This record gives sequence, structure tokens and C-alpha cells, in this order.
Amino acid sequence: MRAATSSSSLRQLQALGRHLSRIETPRLVVMESAFAYNREKMDHVFNVHENLLKCDFRPHAKAHKSPAIARIQLEDGAVGFACQTLTEAEACVKGGAKDILVSNEPQLQADSLKRLVDIASRIDSLKVCVDHPHQVACLSAAVMQYNPKVNVECVIDVDVGQGRCGLSTPAEAVTLAQSVLSLEGQGVTFKGGIQAYHGGIQHIRDPVDRKNESDVVVQIVEEVRREFARAGLLITSVTGGGTGSFTMEGNSGQFTEVQPGSYIFMDADYCANHDDIFKPSLFVLSSIISIGDGRLVLDVGTKGMDYSCIKSPVFYGSVPDGRGPVEVSPYFGAAGGAAKGITVHCAGDEHTVLKGSNESLRSLVGERHCARPGGAVLIQPGHCDPTANMYDHMLYVDDETATVKDVWEINRAAGG
Amino acid sequence: MRAATSSSSLRQLQALGRHLSRIETPRLVVMESAFAYNREKMDHVFNVHENLLKCDFRPHAKAHKSPAIARIQLEDGAVGFACQTLTEAEACVKGGAKDILVSNEPQLQADSLKRLVDIASRIDSLKVCVDHPHQVACLSAAVMQYNPKVNVECVIDVDVGQGRCGLSTPAEAVTLAQSVLSLEGQGVTFKGGIQAYHGGIQHIRDPVDRKNESDVVVQIVEEVRREFARAGLLITSVTGGGTGSFTMEGNSGQFTEVQPGSYIFMDADYCANHDDIFKPSLFVLSSIISIGDGRLVLDVGTKGMDYSCIKSPVFYGSVPDGRGPVEVSPYFGAAGGAAKGITVHCAGDEHTVLKGSNESLRSLVGERHCARPGGAVLIQPGHCDPTANMYDHMLYVDDETATVKDVWEINRAAGG
Repeated sequence: MRAATSSSSLRQLQALGRHLSRIETPRLVVMESAFAYNREKMDHVFNVHENLLKCDFRPHAKAHKSPAIARIQLEDGAVGFACQTLTEAEACVKGGAKDILVSNEPQLQADSLKRLVDIASRIDSLKVCVDHPHQVACLSAAVMQYNPKVNVECVIDVDVGQGRCGLSTPAEAVTLAQSVLSLEGQGVTFKGGIQAYHGGIQHIRDPVDRKNESDVVVQIVEEVRREFARAGLLITSVTGGGTGSFTMEGNSGQFTEVQPGSYIFMDADYCANHDDIFKPSLFVLSSIISIGDGRLVLDVGTKGMDYSCIKSPVFYGSVPDGRGPVEVSPYFGAAGGAAKGITVHCAGDEHTVLKGSNESLRSLVGERHCARPGGAVLIQPGHCDPTANMYDHMLYVDDETATVKDVWEINRAAGG
Repeated sequence: MRAATSSSSLRQLQALGRHLSRIETPRLVVMESAFAYNREKMDHVFNVHENLLKCDFRPHAKAHKSPAIARIQLEDGAVGFACQTLTEAEACVKGGAKDILVSNEPQLQADSLKRLVDIASRIDSLKVCVDHPHQVACLSAAVMQYNPKVNVECVIDVDVGQGRCGLSTPAEAVTLAQSVLSLEGQGVTFKGGIQAYHGGIQHIRDPVDRKNESDVVVQIVEEVRREFARAGLLITSVTGGGTGSFTMEGNSGQFTEVQPGSYIFMDADYCANHDDIFKPSLFVLSSIISIGDGRLVLDVGTKGMDYSCIKSPVFYGSVPDGRGPVEVSPYFGAAGGAAKGITVHCAGDEHTVLKGSNESLRSLVGERHCARPGGAVLIQPGHCDPTANMYDHMLYVDDETATVKDVWEINRAAGG
């Protein structure tokens, strides 16, 4: 967590109450109406339509890394959080979380293990994914060394097709669970939990194709469950499911909880799925710093927006010079951009260029923003997680007045 | 600048004096021997072989954003720095710089202009690139408002073929210079400076092809010079030239200074040029968190390493568990990787996967690192600038002992 008195923090706080056209760029902004829409939609999915999803809501904090948003999601009924890194887990603890799943295999350096035990000491339940007995042994030793009063719950990570982390076969999963049980009472425990997450299927565009792949995930979970039963072990919790697939896994009857994270922000890649049910709320506020024939150059590139996932971020709207609302409706996406004859592309670490005919550009951002540099525009990043990771704060913006209502700290650190 | 007491800073400082195998990951590390080699090589280019480059050395700070490295480069004979952002300029001022070029068109929000004038007030010479009279008017107004005693020197930015910022024709460049002169005495000045930088040619692999493109840049500078002469104006300084082309522009007789930045670190993209004369010194220290059949999963992805530029970062070496040196020689690059039957690829925001036969992996990272997770490895990022921008600190490492000698702050902020 950053000290609130750093000059970066002070600059962000200066933005409070200001219109978007009056604040320094680039900045990460969250638009209130879409953010509220996404919260309400998720509440609808889990609570109003009770028959839709009968499982728990464990949002992934890697999208936001923010104590403020963690607090909001707990109010929205989150049972706890999934986190990839310790800094994310620490952000959630700061936001009031009592139940955290490290949805990753842990780093095994002594300092990291000590931090992990510190987190376990401050909450009711810390779960950690494992796929190797050495991780279990290290967790056990760390708990016994740093705080023997706590227990870290080991969740057996199963590779459900992505080919990244996790055990490849049901038999290996059983063997690892048994090795945790053999250390029971020595700081680690196995309570019948497995993780079955497939990141690779989240962005399959066609929901039917995606459902087919999700069905494979569910089949693997069923196989693992049978193998555990044969060994006399009961699987009591299954976690997984991201923003692209959580309704599928959540409806399967096999999963006890799902981990959507990007839903709260959305990004150009998720919005390119054909069935997206959430609205984009996260944008990079950028300035037009240069105006050329058939081009507008913005002050943000790979140092302020992730370009690795989907190639083209989406231009969203220009901010009027005076006070007043900013219309945040998508002008174009990957396909729509071509239709308007305008392309958005990366031109380096600090530059994005909108290219097209001068007439198209004028109709896109307005006459005034094309006549002289300085105008503010909103860009939807291709991928929200690594984009949020580039900033120390998000500015929470009232759409009606386009003014900054709040400044939310991002607990990014050291690439974590 | 961050407060030194943040928990992130404290964690980095804990690394002081430790062996690389004992510190938390992911971390950004700078290896002393290659860093020293690059400094010496640059000294050789500018000072020892005096006939090689008869122009000034103005390193670009966007590669490092670090007061400590700025200080070192001033010792190495830098006349000052090129910076894209105000946070970079502030880092250089902190490092002792008295001469800064903002090698970008400025952001025009009031807060940014005030920061710019603050910087000008603290150094001998602040130069800012402009390509539109509105920028000049804003700079003039800001100086008159915040500190009428200083002068901001406007450098006319010329588009030399990249199609990003800068004026398209010599005539437009002259007109803009005249508009600066019309405001002379009101906080802005034109002293005959132009910028002619072409980022797009830096990574043309074949140096002959690159030289051909650099020659076009030089021709455009000559044209601009003639047009200025016709208007009775003298061009007295020309700035440009990155790590891929600075020897070319620097030798042209047209440039008075060059702006190489990445030379101090190098990255996989620059190293893929056929004539690279520097050595990689910047790496991401990462842990193997999971071991699968034919794969090793590392704890760093797009949140800790830039993947936008060149697709494949380069695996560099594994760190022994005990004390002792780490050999940082490239095991393979884009081509060499295929030859060894191993690929390095992005598997999400927090994961990179080394894939290959188990035998190849064992020979690559060692038997022990393949037998159980936790081993530390070094990866050379594809692109150094946005990678450094993801971290708050760099760890400066003694190669001989593989221990951390110093912790250098990175003045990254808000995507800047």
C-alpha cells in the first residue's frame, strides 16, 4: 500500500470534484453508471433469479487490486475473493475480506511464505492452490515457523485443459490430496476443495462454442470427483469460472463457487464476446497531444494500456471542454471501427493514434478537438487486468457531471 | 516519487545483500556487468573514438525513469535527458539534471503545465517539442502565470516519416518557429532547435536497410534546414536518434545530439537487430511456480513484462539455489529457442510458460529446478520501457555473487 502523501497520490487527490477535461492524463477512470449496472446485473444473476446460479460468488480481485472495490463486492454478497498475488490478497484484507483463495500456486521464497502466513493470521480462511507436494511441505513449514495457530487450506489445482498450472490426471490429484492429509495438524489442511479454472476459454467469441469447452471442464470435474470417491475422499467445493464462462460452470451443478472478476470493468476483449451481459466501466482518460492530417495522437501507449490481448483498444468518447456529462457509448469496436473508416492503433510506449479521414475524425471527436490539441478522450483498454496494474489509482467518475467522485488506491506492486 | 516507507519499498529494501534465489518474485533486476559494459561501450563511442560521433549524448530517460540511473548517465557525460513524460523529467531533476528535453508534445491541462513550469524553474534549460501554435500559446500563458522569470525553449518537432507527431512539411515547421518567435519574451523562445526522431526504424533488423531509412531522415532534416534558411532562420540544433539508429544520425553531420535510451538495458527486440553493440542488463527475476509434463510455469505474465513489442521474451538463465554467481548468457532467442525445441510464451497476466521436452527443460534450467517448484530464473523482456514502467524499483545485482547491491527507485506514475 502506498503512503497517502506521495506526490503521485497527492496529484490524484487533486482530481477530486473536477471535471474530466480538467485533470492530468493519462488516468484510469471508472464510470459510475456502468459500474453500478454491472453490480446490479451480478446481483440479478446470483440473488434475484435464484434459480439461475446456485453457487457462491467469489470475485477475482486481480481485475482491480483495490481495497475500495473489495469492500463494495463484499457488500454485494461476495463470500470472499480469489487472488493471484499476495499484494492482491493484502488489498482484499484491507477491504475487509475474511476469506481468500490464492488461485495460483504459491511463490516459495521465505519472505513470500511469511507474508502468506501473515495474511492467514488476519482472516478466517486462507485457501491456496497447490499442484506439487513440495508446495504443501513449504506451506506447512512456514505455518509451523511463523504462526502454528493458523491453518492454510490446500485446494488441489486441476488442469482442465489450459495446459498451464494444475495436475493433469484425477489420480495425481488424489495423490496430492492424500499428501496434504498426511501433514494434517501441521499447518495445512485439505477440506475437499479443488480448483477447475480454464482461462483459455473465456474469450471464445461464440457462446455455443464456449459452452462446449465449458462442458469439457465440467466432465473433468466429474471424473476427478469419481476418482476421489474411489479413494474414499469427498470433494466438497469446486471453484473456477471467469467472466466469460461463470454462468456455464455455475449452472453445471458441479461448481460450488465461481470467480468472475472482469465483469466489474469489462474490456475490449470481453466485449468482443458475442454474449457479453455487462457494460464497460473502465477507461483510460487520455489527451490529444498532436493533430495531423488524418490522425489524432493520444498521450497513452503500452505504458498506460495493455495491448497484448486484443490488438485494438476501443475509442469511446470525447470529453467536452466545459462542464457537463460525457457520453460513454462505444463509438466503434474492432468491426465498427472499420465501418467508420477509422483505426485505433498503438504507436509506441506513450502514443495511440486514431487514423482516418479528417471528416471521420471530426465526426468522431468533434470539431473543436480536431482543431487544436488538448482535448480529452476515453479509450477502453483491450485487457483490464494488466491495464489496471499500470496505475496506482482509479478515479471514480459521476457520468452525469463527468466529475471525479472518489480516488481508489490500486494495490499493484512489483508486477504483482 | 514514492514515500520510502511504503510496504512495497520496505520489501524491496529487504532484498539488499541477498542472493537472487532468496528474494521475492517477480522483480526487475539490473545485472552489473552488462550495465557496466553498456556504459563503457557508450563512452567508447562518444569519447574514446572521437571521430566516431561528434555530437552530444542526451540519453532518453523513458527506458529507466530512475534518478539513480540519471545520476550515473550524467557522470558518463550526458548533456541532459530526453523525457516523454513529466514524471520522467522529475526523476531526472532528482538525479541532478539541469537540461531536459520533453521529446513529446506537452499535455495542456493546467496541472500539467504548472508542473512543466515548476521543472523549468529548477533547471538551466527546459526544451519542449511542439507541432501546433496552440501548444506554444499554452506554454507561454503558463510561464507568464506561474513563473515569468523562466523561458521554455520550443523545439519544432518534424515528422520524419513515422506519421505520429510532428509537422509534415518544412514550410509548416518554419511557420511554427515564426509563431514561437512572435511570442518571444513571453515565456517561450525558439533557439533554432528541431527534433527529427523516427521510432519506427529502430527495430529494422538489417543495419543496411535501417541505414537507408535513416538516410531519409537525414535528407528531411537537410530540406528543413534549407527552408529555414530561406526564411532567414538558422537551425542550430537537431535532436533524434534512438538505440537502433543513433550512430547513423549521429554520424550524418546534421544532428547535434542523439537520444539513445534502451542501450543501457537492451531488450529482446533490440537484441534481435543484427548489429546490436550492447548487452542485455535488464531482466525479470521470476519463480517457477508449477512443473508439468513438458512445461515449467513462471510467476510473471503481462502484469510484469511487456509482450506487445516482440512476442517472445528470452529465457536467460536459472539461479542456483545456493550462493554463487548466476550465468546470464542467453540460452536462446526467437530462433535459438526453436533450435532447442523450447518455446517461451505468455500464458496470461501472471504466467509465462517454458514448453519443451522434459529432457530439454532439464538441460535448460537444471535437474533440481525441474524436480520441484520454487527455482528462480531470469527472463529478458521483449521491450524494456513498458516493462520497467510496471515496477516501482529495480534491484541492482552483482553478477559475481548474484546478490543485490542496490535498490533503485523507478519514477513511474499513472501510466507516465
